[in-house]
Amino acid sequence: MAEPAEIVKGCMVIKPNGYAVWEVIQRELDNRFKATGHRNIYLPLLIPHSFLKKEAEHVEGFSPELALVTMAGGKELEEPYVIRPTSETIVGHFFSKWIQSYRDLPMLLNQWANVMRWELRTRMFLRTSEFLWQEGHTAHSNHAEAIEEVLRILDLYAEVSEDIMAVPVIKGVKTQSEKFAGALKSYSIEAMMQNGLALQAGTSHDLGQNFGKAFNVQFQTNTGTLDYVWQTSWGASTRLIGGLIMTHSDDKGLVLPPKVAPMKSVLVPIYRKEQERAEVMERASKIAKDLGAHLDTREGQTPGAKFFHWERLGVPVVLELGPRDVASGNIVLKRRDTGVKEVVPQSEVAAKLASSLETMQLELLQKARQRMKDNTVVANSFEEVESILREVTAEKGGGKFVMTHMKDCPENDARIKEIKATVRNIPLVDEYDGPGKCVLTGEPVERRLVIAKAY
Amino acid sequence: MAEPAEIVKGCMVIKPNGYAVWEVIQRELDNRFKATGHRNIYLPLLIPHSFLKKEAEHVEGFSPELALVTMAGGKELEEPYVIRPTSETIVGHFFSKWIQSYRDLPMLLNQWANVMRWELRTRMFLRTSEFLWQEGHTAHSNHAEAIEEVLRILDLYAEVSEDIMAVPVIKGVKTQSEKFAGALKSYSIEAMMQNGLALQAGTSHDLGQNFGKAFNVQFQTNTGTLDYVWQTSWGASTRLIGGLIMTHSDDKGLVLPPKVAPMKSVLVPIYRKEQERAEVMERASKIAKDLGAHLDTREGQTPGAKFFHWERLGVPVVLELGPRDVASGNIVLKRRDTGVKEVVPQSEVAAKLASSLETMQLELLQKARQRMKDNTVVANSFEEVESILREVTAEKGGGKFVMTHMKDCPENDARIKEIKATVRNIPLVDEYDGPGKCVLTGEPVERRLVIAKAY
Repeated sequence: MAEPAEIVKGCMVIKPNGYAVWEVIQRELDNRFKATGHRNIYLPLLIPHSFLKKEAEHVEGFSPELALVTMAGGKELEEPYVIRPTSETIVGHFFSKWIQSYRDLPMLLNQWANVMRWELRTRMFLRTSEFLWQEGHTAHSNHAEAIEEVLRILDLYAEVSEDIMAVPVIKGVKTQSEKFAGALKSYSIEAMMQNGLALQAGTSHDLGQNFGKAFNVQFQTNTGTLDYVWQTSWGASTRLIGGLIMTHSDDKGLVLPPKVAPMKSVLVPIYRKEQERAEVMERASKIAKDLGAHLDTREGQTPGAKFFHWERLGVPVVLELGPRDVASGNIVLKRRDTGVKEVVPQSEVAAKLASSLETMQLELLQKARQRMKDNTVVANSFEEVESILREVTAEKGGGKFVMTHMKDCPENDARIKEIKATVRNIPLVDEYDGPGKCVLTGEPVERRLVIAKAY
Repeated sequence: MAEPAEIVKGCMVIKPNGYAVWEVIQRELDNRFKATGHRNIYLPLLIPHSFLKKEAEHVEGFSPELALVTMAGGKELEEPYVIRPTSETIVGHFFSKWIQSYRDLPMLLNQWANVMRWELRTRMFLRTSEFLWQEGHTAHSNHAEAIEEVLRILDLYAEVSEDIMAVPVIKGVKTQSEKFAGALKSYSIEAMMQNGLALQAGTSHDLGQNFGKAFNVQFQTNTGTLDYVWQTSWGASTRLIGGLIMTHSDDKGLVLPPKVAPMKSVLVPIYRKEQERAEVMERASKIAKDLGAHLDTREGQTPGAKFFHWERLGVPVVLELGPRDVASGNIVLKRRDTGVKEVVPQSEVAAKLASSLETMQLELLQKARQRMKDNTVVANSFEEVESILREVTAEKGGGKFVMTHMKDCPENDARIKEIKATVRNIPLVDEYDGPGKCVLTGEPVERRLVIAKAY
């Protein structure tokens, strides 16, 4: 899927199989962005360093992670550029040029791009210095509409995660300490990996008028007054591939839900003698063509090596066809997730393949949902939270989502960080017991939030 | 389409209409790359500075244009990184890890990415410090196969340029002075803009074993010996959008050939009184839906303002429907390139729209072909070349492709550069008078090459 680029600290090379998955995710997201009125643009990779300083929280949040260009074209630059860690500041600059009147609103933009955040500890796909993502940037004439947009995108992220990637998520609000640098409020979708660790899989931010004021993005309202625009931004990245791998894969390699698999099925022909070869290949070609399956025609590889290869790459269904199958009119289907083989008449293989893919998609989601449910627990004291999460690490596993009544305040977030966990989010929908008392301050809170160890 | 980012020297912002065109071009190229067995990957944005030095010509060619990252994560870096101007060196590094045997070959990869070449003089889309492109990188077990690949891609570029963008090109070989830094041989497609200036619209390079040796990419051949791989690289960029604009646009704005237009037709409803509005909109909605045309429902804009808007954006066909058309059962079609209006029965509009788009696509190509032909001249002495090109500038126009017998040697290229022109390429197909004597050295050469002023 990918490998560390070693020679470039914390960067990765995304290999063909991984990139093909990214292309599917891109298409699924992009289609939904376009269907909801967003248009793609492209903004500069470099941002003048001074730009970041215009929004106070923003620069504070991103400063430690910046990569700086100080020389270009053989000369020292008067002012260094930063490689974009995200593009709110440059968007702010251009919004102030493009937006004059309420007639220009809403402005619904998105860009597919690379960004760079210099990370100390990196992990393939999950935390890399450079990553690929989309970043949406929108401007609205009022706060209600901006909030509607933020939630629309959060739903869209959850939909792609669950329906396409079979990765169940919890939609919620980030605490004030964990929100995006410069936002009023951040929303996230949080997934649970097989080791029980949490993964933030997408975020959607209500920026209020913070960037509008910092970059002077004013517009004439329909009553003739002047106001600052209300902005949103939202992003999902190649980290989704990491989440996909760590939700479904097993010891044999990747397991790809059919809807996100670039190649849904492969047919491996089996023969020993030369005379078998001709009849097997003829039949196999016809079936593969009818099914739109990839036919593995590689010479000099045993069928076993071929099965191993496709299994490792996570192809959802592998079909086998040997001389005996040609004689009997049957064919063998093997599902990647269960490993179960099924012999079906060739005349029924198309229907069987379609239903296998559909079932696999559903079962992978169900399995992940069940795991998330099994590993979500309720805690009613800080000691309980601590004891549940104490031994959890990425390697040892045992992670839980600990549903706790806790007030959203920086002191509490800090206390949770001391036990190497974080508040993931405050769920939008309360599936637990409603209001309660904060386990740390005793103050009343509306509902339980999610505490977990996370990537 | 785009605007200079001013705040970031030489970088541009690609706006929605421009980016949508880029998405069409991307899809057309990407489909063809995949159909010919290429797979997409993603490589790091940053390259260790020392890497570029491994191929001597390569570093010499790119050094003046590099942007350097010297600080990251709050610290000075031990070795600066360069922002990729192109990725041959990093590909060389990974090929040496991924390729062991002839069984791993050919390796056919491509990446869609941004690159940075710090330019002194920039021009929107044509020459920007940062641009978007695809760069193909392939490795082969022998030279013949690599050359075949280089030419296959050159054909593919010409096909997308001519058949999709209606931009005719001349396929040819670059002179030794103008080839890619590190290549054995570079091939290009050269287009002619409306002012007669040349634009290099895509290049395909035979890298020989230069990078294979520089990065020690060795493989075991099928006879058990060791050899270095033969590599190719090839790229086409957002510059294509510039070529498209400057080939077809007029004083009213952009003219987009239908096949590259993100929006092929728009229907503008016309009404004055409220009672007209209902019947016009009802009919217009139905027709637009049937045609898959965009219906311009914007309120508070006159039809005239709407026509102006779509004209400027280059939409190939604009349809008008007013109360009289509703009564008569007719509708008006207006082609963007000719400006000709045609009244047709609503029952025939689908067929008429399809044929108009088809005709427009063909006629735009024919028109550009004719212009290229009209502005291609033969010269039989250096003085003649000089006199033909003397007064030509991008602003004044009058540019020509000057077909000249001239030897491919650095001294001759230098002489041509003195008159502010360049050898564009040596055409693969000789459409002129075969061999002749070099106008500068008198030595025999096989065919005429193209000299022009260029972007």
